[in-house]
Amino acid sequence: MKTSGGSDAAKRRAGESAAEAVADGEVVGLGTGSTAAHAIRRLGDRVGSGLDIRGVATSFASRELAADRGIPLLDLDEAVGPDAPGIDVAIDGADQVAVGAAGSDKTASDEAAAGVGPLIKGGGAAHAREKLVDAAAGRFLVVADPSKEVPVLDRSVPVEVLPAGRSAVAEAVRAAGGEPTLRRAERKDGPVVTDNGNLVLDCAFGEIDDPGALATALSTTPGVVEHGLFVGLADEVHVGTETDVRVARR
Amino acid sequence: MKTSGGSDAAKRRAGESAAEAVADGEVVGLGTGSTAAHAIRRLGDRVGSGLDIRGVATSFASRELAADRGIPLLDLDEAVGPDAPGIDVAIDGADQVAVGAAGSDKTASDEAAAGVGPLIKGGGAAHAREKLVDAAAGRFLVVADPSKEVPVLDRSVPVEVLPAGRSAVAEAVRAAGGEPTLRRAERKDGPVVTDNGNLVLDCAFGEIDDPGALATALSTTPGVVEHGLFVGLADEVHVGTETDVRVARR
Repeated sequence: MKTSGGSDAAKRRAGESAAEAVADGEVVGLGTGSTAAHAIRRLGDRVGSGLDIRGVATSFASRELAADRGIPLLDLDEAVGPDAPGIDVAIDGADQVAVGAAGSDKTASDEAAAGVGPLIKGGGAAHAREKLVDAAAGRFLVVADPSKEVPVLDRSVPVEVLPAGRSAVAEAVRAAGGEPTLRRAERKDGPVVTDNGNLVLDCAFGEIDDPGALATALSTTPGVVEHGLFVGLADEVHVGTETDVRVARR
Repeated sequence: MKTSGGSDAAKRRAGESAAEAVADGEVVGLGTGSTAAHAIRRLGDRVGSGLDIRGVATSFASRELAADRGIPLLDLDEAVGPDAPGIDVAIDGADQVAVGAAGSDKTASDEAAAGVGPLIKGGGAAHAREKLVDAAAGRFLVVADPSKEVPVLDRSVPVEVLPAGRSAVAEAVRAAGGEPTLRRAERKDGPVVTDNGNLVLDCAFGEIDDPGALATALSTTPGVVEHGLFVGLADEVHVGTETDVRVARR
């Protein structure tokens, strides 16, 4: 699990703050990464004290941790649908959160002006399922530490692609001004393979002035399964610091 | 292979007409379905007579047929990229082609006005790889018979989804006014599984007045891998009849 940037104490404050915002009876999307893991651990403690919730995991890793901590789990297919309970709230981390003016996209700017900006996710290659769960949730709470906050998104956007579409998507990314790099695995030869059996291109675009436009361009590119730009999805951002937690709401 | 609608003679005329439009030295995308199969067979005959081409298959089925007919094959990753030859032309079928006014989408209307309309593909569940190849090609030739032509697209749109995203995508389709049905397999229990390991929701929207807008809405829905609306991609449509072939060019 990636733990780059930010102190563990700051991440723990953020994760625990969001976990405290979950109410009895809710169905909770359980995010992936070191900060979301703190939320899952706190939710597990609360379940041990009698909190009645059910979790929906965003990844193999979050499912494993939640099961270990005694959180009852639903499959996403059990949680969403005509006769299903729905997902009340999701808690998930981010690799980067925009907190400044974020360019010409209206949704993105409105978000950023409120300190609840568009995000980049996917450092853990779980962003396809994370976006499914986070987008389906009634409230999406982002947990982060100050090292993730930027005025304008500028880190590489992880793009999950069909294996056969790798070169065609890379060409489309270059045509859009980006520089794609196939993510290589550690502890296995060759590329990272996602939980869905696909590959990841980390696509550097420099400063992303219009996250909404780039998100649509990537989504409509043949071969793209999902990308790591989350625009217009976040409802709250909980940022832990060494001493405190800041919560921004849309 | 599906062979519903249209006579085999009409399909053969369409497929062979497109195969004759391929020039020596070209890299050719090889489509899926009964009409595209006629094009592959004719290309195989032409290779037997000395035509120098290389094929890029859009599916397991088209790869198998092309190999059987002696057409040298490239992987898509070998055909597309900075030092690759590129795909000169693709020939592929359609489940439905709009030839009338196709609503408010400008691209779609311009296409339809010229008789080169937006398409629906995916009856064979190969539309993700088909779109990769067809979109990468310099020229995309659609082959069809008159039973596929309609003034306004109205058949179900096949949507390939991540297995975990099945219910969430179905909810999004319902919210957009569509009626999703999970495609069930024959000759195996349970659902159809695509060549990419995913599922297919056949989504009925009634008459699709704005194919471009629906295409973008589907592409940006989390969990959607690819959908069967091909908007703004076709360059020529070859329609075979009992006696002749009509060719419309953009």
